[in-house]
Amino acid sequence: MSDAKSLLKEKTLVVALGGNALGIDPFDQNKTINEVVPYLIDVLVPGMRMLVTHGNGPQVGMINSAFFFASKNPENDVYVMPLPECGAMSQGYIGYQLSQAFISEFRRRGMKTNCVNMMTQTVVSEKDPAFSTPPDKPVGAFMTEEAARAYAAETGFFVGPDSGRGWRRMVSSPLPQSLLEAPAAKELLEEGYLVIAGGGGGVPVAKQPDGTYKGVDAVVDKDRTSAQLALDVDADMLVILTAVEKVYLNFGKPNQKGLDSLTLEEAKKYIDEGQFGEGSMLPKVEACMHFVNGRPGSMALITSIENAKDAVHGEGGTRIIS
Amino acid sequence: MSDAKSLLKEKTLVVALGGNALGIDPFDQNKTINEVVPYLIDVLVPGMRMLVTHGNGPQVGMINSAFFFASKNPENDVYVMPLPECGAMSQGYIGYQLSQAFISEFRRRGMKTNCVNMMTQTVVSEKDPAFSTPPDKPVGAFMTEEAARAYAAETGFFVGPDSGRGWRRMVSSPLPQSLLEAPAAKELLEEGYLVIAGGGGGVPVAKQPDGTYKGVDAVVDKDRTSAQLALDVDADMLVILTAVEKVYLNFGKPNQKGLDSLTLEEAKKYIDEGQFGEGSMLPKVEACMHFVNGRPGSMALITSIENAKDAVHGEGGTRIIS
Repeated sequence: MSDAKSLLKEKTLVVALGGNALGIDPFDQNKTINEVVPYLIDVLVPGMRMLVTHGNGPQVGMINSAFFFASKNPENDVYVMPLPECGAMSQGYIGYQLSQAFISEFRRRGMKTNCVNMMTQTVVSEKDPAFSTPPDKPVGAFMTEEAARAYAAETGFFVGPDSGRGWRRMVSSPLPQSLLEAPAAKELLEEGYLVIAGGGGGVPVAKQPDGTYKGVDAVVDKDRTSAQLALDVDADMLVILTAVEKVYLNFGKPNQKGLDSLTLEEAKKYIDEGQFGEGSMLPKVEACMHFVNGRPGSMALITSIENAKDAVHGEGGTRIIS
Repeated sequence: MSDAKSLLKEKTLVVALGGNALGIDPFDQNKTINEVVPYLIDVLVPGMRMLVTHGNGPQVGMINSAFFFASKNPENDVYVMPLPECGAMSQGYIGYQLSQAFISEFRRRGMKTNCVNMMTQTVVSEKDPAFSTPPDKPVGAFMTEEAARAYAAETGFFVGPDSGRGWRRMVSSPLPQSLLEAPAAKELLEEGYLVIAGGGGGVPVAKQPDGTYKGVDAVVDKDRTSAQLALDVDADMLVILTAVEKVYLNFGKPNQKGLDSLTLEEAKKYIDEGQFGEGSMLPKVEACMHFVNGRPGSMALITSIENAKDAVHGEGGTRIIS
């Protein structure tokens, strides 16, 4: 075993996959997942533990839409589905395809590793500042402004225009505080399972004064949840996969410059300069900072799926370190 | 601790909940789950391990219908969802509500027990006799005969009339051979987690010649899956919950007689006499026989949720023993 490999032995990695690349056609999604999974297995060295999280933006939107539209005709016998239940459904079927792809690829390679997809609830605070400003995360079906206003009047939900394509329901995006299933995920990682958890940022739940939990109509950023989950399972490395190989300064400009590494201090400076796009690279860099800051000596990595192995093993991608 | 309680200490129970009682309105379902869960927690004694399975008949049908109907209008941006993915979705959202209800009720009682909902894949054989007879398990939306025949011609699926209410898609119901997630469920049971697994009978998957797995358009009986899961996790007791307190001879007739216990031999005799209704008590009795037969010294129990505690602790219900 090379030096890089022996350093990675016994390490725990949390790897975050995007939801956008998967699309909403379930057959295309399964095809993409089967293309992606071998790259993730390539990252593994004997003894390494891996937890995989995934996004669900387009998928939870489609689930929400399917029940919303089908319920309009009472003959269909379909009910409108609340957002937490839609999120749990997305974890079910995306995680099912992921788990099956992992187990199948392990068998193709003659590996005995098993995989478990765990439904995950993410604790958020009802006092989160996100709840005291107007909700701005669009979810579910596009509607005309008229239909959206009628829907808002009927349900009490917020609605608003989204990217010029029509109106949609708007919900808040609070920060994750902890994950109810993290201790179980940690147990299974230690027993050698590849664990799928925290899908779509987890189903947001709020702790009630009597200690019980209740689903919240909100969405949690999946990269931020991945960072929290990485802290909760005592991970050594957080890997956020995206469409580009590195984090760039002056992204898309002639003087674009890829970054090999970023300290917390440098990251803060570049954020203040507005270097990272909101809703794209900024939340990923912030998630990495949250993890590295919370776990001294750890490291976060932003790279593409194709570069994941090299980057984890020491070459390429952008490393975020304290 | 009483004698009955000390005998139950360190025992592993697999408890199967029906899906019909939950209904398809997600709010009613959550209310019912919150009424049912305290009865299940009442069964527990310190050190006892519990795995809960649940049905999904009405719910997987609604999920299938929602995507089917909503996909008919291309503007909705919704795809038809394959049956295995629908099953995985049903495990996600039913298990989410169950898990939240368990954790909440544990906290109300000052108990620290945690709960995990695990997506489960059930291995079936593509050579199962169920696949060589015409499929006869109805799933998904009701259609007119004309619409059903057009749907069959377009998709290659089987369709048929169902209980005088219209035509539906028909799929096969093969027997479960094993559950891919059983070893992980066993790990978590041993660590003290209440585990939710095998929902809706599990997502049926078939092992391919190269050792990989593939989803199958079929449904697996949830009681039979519960029995297999009980064998796979080395359970001591299988508890199948239903609407009646006991198994009855001459059910619904003036000479109806409740049974306190049933040996495998007696059960076989009564089955030959046609005592147990197909699609109701028969599959439950057969599931219990499968478990008791596969695990010498074990016991299965059929009773109602209200009688679960007394029956598990020694009084009431029908015990199936070797």
